Amino acid sequence: MAEIAVPVVRNILQANERLASENRRRFDEAGIFVINLMSSPGAGKTSLLEKTIDALAGRIGIAVIEGDLQSSCDAERIQKKGVQAVQINTDGGCHLDGNMIQIALSAIDLTGVDLLIIENVGNLVCPAEFNLGEHEKVTILSVAEGDDKPVKYPLMFQICSVLLVNKIDLLPYTDCDVAKIRQTAKHLNPAGKVFEISCRTGEGFAPWLYWIEEKVREHRKNRTSSPHSDKR
Amino acid sequence: MAEIAVPVVRNILQANERLASENRRRFDEAGIFVINLMSSPGAGKTSLLEKTIDALAGRIGIAVIEGDLQSSCDAERIQKKGVQAVQINTDGGCHLDGNMIQIALSAIDLTGVDLLIIENVGNLVCPAEFNLGEHEKVTILSVAEGDDKPVKYPLMFQICSVLLVNKIDLLPYTDCDVAKIRQTAKHLNPAGKVFEISCRTGEGFAPWLYWIEEKVREHRKNRTSSPHSDKR
Repeated sequence: MAEIAVPVVRNILQANERLASENRRRFDEAGIFVINLMSSPGAGKTSLLEKTIDALAGRIGIAVIEGDLQSSCDAERIQKKGVQAVQINTDGGCHLDGNMIQIALSAIDLTGVDLLIIENVGNLVCPAEFNLGEHEKVTILSVAEGDDKPVKYPLMFQICSVLLVNKIDLLPYTDCDVAKIRQTAKHLNPAGKVFEISCRTGEGFAPWLYWIEEKVREHRKNRTSSPHSDKR
Repeated sequence: MAEIAVPVVRNILQANERLASENRRRFDEAGIFVINLMSSPGAGKTSLLEKTIDALAGRIGIAVIEGDLQSSCDAERIQKKGVQAVQINTDGGCHLDGNMIQIALSAIDLTGVDLLIIENVGNLVCPAEFNLGEHEKVTILSVAEGDDKPVKYPLMFQICSVLLVNKIDLLPYTDCDVAKIRQTAKHLNPAGKVFEISCRTGEGFAPWLYWIEEKVREHRKNRTSSPHSDKR
């Protein structure tokens, strides 16, 4: 079993890297900043998208790719905000991959899009291993999940550029120690940023929005194709 | 890629079923009731174990197998309660499987054990596909994760005999509708039980403990070997 399984897994990861690079080239040509948004189920990915879209609408062109096992409820929530949202159903699969993003891109009109956010399947393990072609990985951790999660799921916290500690409105009712989260996250990824937010109250959103706007400006500037053409 | 990957996955699942059956036979011979405990990261699996051990200690012999990517902090928490706990590190793997349980069993003294609880890796997707030889699958959902989780991760809620809706002490501070969770869970698995609990306050534990004690009695009665011998 082991002799067969190991090379196959390696091939899958290599094939994925190739597709992710193709996606990245396409994003860079179009000058679109792309985020791969990951977390446990229910940490607040879709709520973050809703609040972020509300705050940036009109100033930044946004599109969303939603990854879920089967349902389309998240894409419907996002479409209500008036932005393009494409739903990928993995049919039970535990993470998105580069190929799924390529297929989803064929259903998105990238004209006028500055920011593409890909909401991965809710899973703190598998999505960390599959690049999608994104520029930055953003992880959300809800304080209700507890402060031991970075120690227990280290890869996810090692690879993310930004860690959003969400649901800080619940802090008075939990035993979660945010200083401990910050400490372990810094140990795993010294260059990573940590923002404390509440998608429920809107608290702490300013630094997160500022970070996105800076990144969008940077990627617009580095656009390698004429605006909005598709050179793929 | 697909032509190679599909048969390999099928072989893995078949090989796992064979190992799970061997584990089950061993549990039945020893008359031990075995639970496969699953949830998202941070839903409260280890806290549930701590409270359950406190309540049943002295009356029921308990052992625990802890599944984690790398750390041993959960097994250490359980050992402090004075019961045997063996830590499996999956080295990044997203679920436990029958083979890992077989290896862990070689490190457990089953003498006097009536109840074995296997705490799976925190993941609402992959563990649902791998039987370990357990008698019952128990899933924990924290109300902080939201009431849409059964719709979004249906397999996990379809296969569990018991759904524990945990952290009900947080209900006043969230938008979670437990009636909606119950409704979707019942639709996915009409025979499944749902218990509302708080591992923090201890609220709602009586029906859960009663369910375990009934099951332990039943399995003790059906023991096929002489008590505590290892016929494997």
